[in-house]
Amino acid sequence: MACGKCDRRSSKVEELSANDKSLGTRRALRHDGRERNEDETLTGEKTKPIGELTLRALAMPGDTNAAGDIFGGWVMAQMDLACGIRAAERARGRVVTAAVREMSFAAPMKIGDTLSIYTKITRVGRTSMTLKVEAWAQRYLTHIMERVTDAEFVMVALDGEGRPTPVPGE
Amino acid sequence: MACGKCDRRSSKVEELSANDKSLGTRRALRHDGRERNEDETLTGEKTKPIGELTLRALAMPGDTNAAGDIFGGWVMAQMDLACGIRAAERARGRVVTAAVREMSFAAPMKIGDTLSIYTKITRVGRTSMTLKVEAWAQRYLTHIMERVTDAEFVMVALDGEGRPTPVPGE
Amino acid sequence: MACGKCDRRSSKVEELSANDKSLGTRRALRHDGRERNEDETLTGEKTKPIGELTLRALAMPGDTNAAGDIFGGWVMAQMDLACGIRAAERARGRVVTAAVREMSFAAPMKIGDTLSIYTKITRVGRTSMTLKVEAWAQRYLTHIMERVTDAEFVMVALDGEGRPTPVPGE
Amino acid sequence: MACGKCDRRSSKVEELSANDKSLGTRRALRHDGRERNEDETLTGEKTKPIGELTLRALAMPGDTNAAGDIFGGWVMAQMDLACGIRAAERARGRVVTAAVREMSFAAPMKIGDTLSIYTKITRVGRTSMTLKVEAWAQRYLTHIMERVTDAEFVMVALDGEGRPTPVPGE
Amino acid sequence: MACGKCDRRSSKVEELSANDKSLGTRRALRHDGRERNEDETLTGEKTKPIGELTLRALAMPGDTNAAGDIFGGWVMAQMDLACGIRAAERARGRVVTAAVREMSFAAPMKIGDTLSIYTKITRVGRTSMTLKVEAWAQRYLTHIMERVTDAEFVMVALDGEGRPTPVPGE
Amino acid sequence: MACGKCDRRSSKVEELSANDKSLGTRRALRHDGRERNEDETLTGEKTKPIGELTLRALAMPGDTNAAGDIFGGWVMAQMDLACGIRAAERARGRVVTAAVREMSFAAPMKIGDTLSIYTKITRVGRTSMTLKVEAWAQRYLTHIMERVTDAEFVMVALDGEGRPTPVPGE
Repeated sequence: MACGKCDRRSSKVEELSANDKSLGTRRALRHDGRERNEDETLTGEKTKPIGELTLRALAMPGDTNAAGDIFGGWVMAQMDLACGIRAAERARGRVVTAAVREMSFAAPMKIGDTLSIYTKITRVGRTSMTLKVEAWAQRYLTHIMERVTDAEFVMVALDGEGRPTPVPGE
Repeated sequence: MACGKCDRRSSKVEELSANDKSLGTRRALRHDGRERNEDETLTGEKTKPIGELTLRALAMPGDTNAAGDIFGGWVMAQMDLACGIRAAERARGRVVTAAVREMSFAAPMKIGDTLSIYTKITRVGRTSMTLKVEAWAQRYLTHIMERVTDAEFVMVALDGEGRPTPVPGE
Repeated sequence: MACGKCDRRSSKVEELSANDKSLGTRRALRHDGRERNEDETLTGEKTKPIGELTLRALAMPGDTNAAGDIFGGWVMAQMDLACGIRAAERARGRVVTAAVREMSFAAPMKIGDTLSIYTKITRVGRTSMTLKVEAWAQRYLTHIMERVTDAEFVMVALDGEGRPTPVPGE
Repeated sequence: MACGKCDRRSSKVEELSANDKSLGTRRALRHDGRERNEDETLTGEKTKPIGELTLRALAMPGDTNAAGDIFGGWVMAQMDLACGIRAAERARGRVVTAAVREMSFAAPMKIGDTLSIYTKITRVGRTSMTLKVEAWAQRYLTHIMERVTDAEFVMVALDGEGRPTPVPGE
Repeated sequence: MACGKCDRRSSKVEELSANDKSLGTRRALRHDGRERNEDETLTGEKTKPIGELTLRALAMPGDTNAAGDIFGGWVMAQMDLACGIRAAERARGRVVTAAVREMSFAAPMKIGDTLSIYTKITRVGRTSMTLKVEAWAQRYLTHIMERVTDAEFVMVALDGEGRPTPVPGE
Repeated sequence: MACGKCDRRSSKVEELSANDKSLGTRRALRHDGRERNEDETLTGEKTKPIGELTLRALAMPGDTNAAGDIFGGWVMAQMDLACGIRAAERARGRVVTAAVREMSFAAPMKIGDTLSIYTKITRVGRTSMTLKVEAWAQRYLTHIMERVTDAEFVMVALDGEGRPTPVPGE
């Protein structure tokens, strides 16, 4: 799992990778859409984000912990913001986060990286919407993009009094 | 599931509760530790936070979305901060968030509520630590506390170069 | 200049439009890329952003003034952030903002709108880069996008000591 | 253009100064108002801010980019805030930023510097106000003040519904 | 203590004024320096800030509590920032806050008000500096200024290792 | 006053300690409640916080000044937030800070430390409440807690119009 170009991520997941395969895989593509062949030939995995780009934020010094690392919680908060935007747009009204399915961090964020959040509505229930969310880092001063994490969020549409309300047809 | 005192939470989960029992349950206790009997007799569930109080924050107007609701992502970020504090303390060094197990939001946060994050280290692996995290709201102007959400976080200890490093013995 | 759907923008620019034509024009498109025909037939203007999407942010309550309006300065700061990202990527190093050409605000931002910043490098000098920047709002709960403002930024590449340094070839 | 005391600014503008004279000039005065003679004799230029001090802010670590430099956009946002304050005071009501005339950055901001924004209303139209804005840095641990940038902002008075409204007589 | 123009402040201090005279007094002046005669004739008190204007900030929606009031703690933080700036300038180096003498709030801050912090170094010890700090509000859309609070701060000069170090002569 | 374990605090207060005994004393306990015997035997002082834990926050890089130190004003703002929470809870309504009694900083905060604010209501007047507030740091990566500062805050209960209103009986 050693990676000569990017020593930041690959090592940190070795203990976890035994029971979480997704952590040990490498996903990267150039920002211009051309896949990085060395990764693709090795893994055969998808190396492109799925869904619509909903938010794109810059990781700044104010988002770090005492060790200078960007908080995982900052990434989660951006993902939640993005799901809120996308679901509110679909429901044409107020929404709230009801649940988040497991997320594993495949790569860290660093100061100067940009974080792109992609969302895709995968299921619409009576009052709830399920979204697939992917978070990708574009590394500082490069065009290289790496998947940071992904998750499934469940959002619920609310009426003016904060009660669940049906999601309207499209 | 109607609740005369608190109309904010109970209704919003009705659609989800069919396949997620934890969303439909009521957990509340007075801040002074005395359980609210009316809840306990109905549900027989635990109504006290588990773990050590690691962070306690005030939900402020700057943490809201366009509808005036506190973002779920703000709660997630506080939980991640708390796990970072607790795990760094245990590992006596730098840590990073590796994974978050599913979390369901049982109750919303409102402006003026305080959010208490309780953490408990439940497992220490070679380089990773698993924490049980609970987030409880104390409602504005009251002593009533309600469980907002809980989750399991996996944190990994890092050395100075950002590589996983063994968690020292206690 | 009255607009039944969107009363927020068109009226506020009437005084200025005499000597600044760009303020009085209407630019809007659906987020899915299909142009809004009623605008296009009227004006014949471009109704799509130019350049690469570099940042996409949510306008939140904390970014407002006492009247509840999103600050123009918040939009400018996002544009500057985006130019900094794009130019640093091109220069493969540290950059600084040297100049901003005139910008006119064609439409206001509101809480809940998302702001998309598009950048395009239009000229590379020895140590400077000129970027065309466009800021577009996607309105809260809709797919409608409107151009908020655009500008030209000049960024300068810096070396480690903060002195101008040549922009490398691509 | 070399400056023994302050190596931070003078070099970065050499490429631009050919076609933007204002970038290459040196403007500095002691905070107590006594001019720095060495500059004045060389340039004969004004070395004092024009207008009323409207905001004065401290550049903090949270306002920096990945290279540790204060964002130009932070300065722009402070200028916009100041124009909003001054114009709202003049219009005795809500205002919005309509346009910004070209601004060139003559000197960078650094962490620990304070930024003083001076505003002067230079023209009052029917619904608009034009302001001259100057941004001056007082350098960390010194009394030396340097002009960072200046610009012209056009602000428009709005009524309660967000439509342009006449600026009242003084 | 009723005040027809400004109902925001005068009433809230009636209980306290018995044992804290400074709370019950009215201090206001026009921003242009001309005293408001009606106050001066009534009270004969000083109605002008003492010291040098060190910071001037806008009270924004993000600085409020659940009731929409600006936190007293926001005002204290601005005062501390200002003392840090002024004392670091005097000591020509790093400083830290050692003590704050009693402060009483004579008037509240509201969203849209600007807060001006005036500082005056009143005593220089071997390693410490004592500052008189005044916080004045300029009310939203007006030229009226009112004293919000004042205090005495003691700042200590530190060397590179964080140990107290003598304040240099001027 | 030398302390082998913690060189950060003890030295900075030597000048002040002549006339402010509280600055020179050492107060520390382990987070788990077991006192550190070496301190207690030396001083015989209380080494435990008094009151109820009302807020617990992490000191982050965004809260520092140009020298990398956490602002004293950040600590004051957290103390004010905590008093606002506690007093609003007691008054069952809106409150405002009326006065703060002298506070001395016995120890600095550093990035990565957590700050715990303990509050105790010591007196309830007709419309005012007096609180004893203590701020304790838990040092980064340790269980050691040190008292940072304490103070007395006076909060006043307000009615809907912002006028002082009686504090209800418990």
